[in-house]
Amino acid sequence: MRLPNPIERFVAKLSELPSLGPRQATRLAFYLLRTGENNMRELGDAISGMRSVKPCARCFFVHQNENGLCDICRDPRRAQNVIMVIEKETDLLSLENSGKFNGRYFILGEIAKTGILEEWQKLRLQQLKSFIQKEFGPSTGSTQAKAEEIVLGFNPTSVGDFSASLVARELEPFAKKISRLGRGLPTGGEIEFADDETLGSALERRG
Amino acid sequence: MRLPNPIERFVAKLSELPSLGPRQATRLAFYLLRTGENNMRELGDAISGMRSVKPCARCFFVHQNENGLCDICRDPRRAQNVIMVIEKETDLLSLENSGKFNGRYFILGEIAKTGILEEWQKLRLQQLKSFIQKEFGPSTGSTQAKAEEIVLGFNPTSVGDFSASLVARELEPFAKKISRLGRGLPTGGEIEFADDETLGSALERRG
Repeated sequence: MRLPNPIERFVAKLSELPSLGPRQATRLAFYLLRTGENNMRELGDAISGMRSVKPCARCFFVHQNENGLCDICRDPRRAQNVIMVIEKETDLLSLENSGKFNGRYFILGEIAKTGILEEWQKLRLQQLKSFIQKEFGPSTGSTQAKAEEIVLGFNPTSVGDFSASLVARELEPFAKKISRLGRGLPTGGEIEFADDETLGSALERRG
Repeated sequence: MRLPNPIERFVAKLSELPSLGPRQATRLAFYLLRTGENNMRELGDAISGMRSVKPCARCFFVHQNENGLCDICRDPRRAQNVIMVIEKETDLLSLENSGKFNGRYFILGEIAKTGILEEWQKLRLQQLKSFIQKEFGPSTGSTQAKAEEIVLGFNPTSVGDFSASLVARELEPFAKKISRLGRGLPTGGEIEFADDETLGSALERRG
């Protein structure tokens, strides 16, 4: 049956968002209608409030700082010459939560299912190279500048492996060392249920 | 790590919505930020657009009509004296999609896990009774007016059963017949995997 236009529009708009289907969107529409105008206004305000958030000029993470850099990029205690290339902002959040990485990040954007980089992603890589050249290059400019280490923080999937090899080839001249996140058994997992690939990596990297 | 305030606020606000956790809310925040200001504005507009949607004066479903009634309640081809009492708007949508019901609905609101009706739900029932009295009552007002049939369209769960019995007792004097939705094997289901209760209903109601 046809719902009033504003509801259809809301459902269509919400269904565009990732991981939200029309069913959940419809449920949310009725929930909002039930909770009343104030709640709808607050949600609208929360959305428009996000317009003041900007991408970091160095790593593309979010920030609201004056100088164009995010909290991580402008933190003098973080190693600027150890750079982890990742896909998404939420990957950054998970990695930061571990509290084990003291370098900085570079967000490349979500990689297509083919594993091949899109044009805008190639431009981002270009920007990373320029940054490395400018920041770590010798004043004479005669030799290739190199970051201490570039970590490829891509998912341990075949797509992730493929794009990691592409990106590694691109960045190879720009880092003394290129690494990937370690593979093995996830903590709390059980050997009995681990797949062959994971067990293979766990054996290979035992120690 | 702390995210810029507007993002934290958006995530908090979105996490209040049913079936949306902070993780999904965070993912949506970054998605919106990536798609840019226009998209955020459109989403905000879609939300504020819903403010013009009103509840039906008769059944509490949504509408934008002039006379206060939803499309179903003002449709002369629908039997007004066959009323299905349901919990939610989305239940109505599913039932309408079946195309098999030609009466009208009455939305009682989501029932608490205890199965007991809340005060505002009792008021709604009161309103249903008044409607029946006014619409189907004899002009003299000497006898109790009755709807032809009231269908209790509650979920086939123990909570649904309990509130159905409560509501049935309340509405008994106001309907010639009180029924519930039929129970049995769901189409496409397999006997082997059906639970005992379902098989019991299927046997009891065979025919």
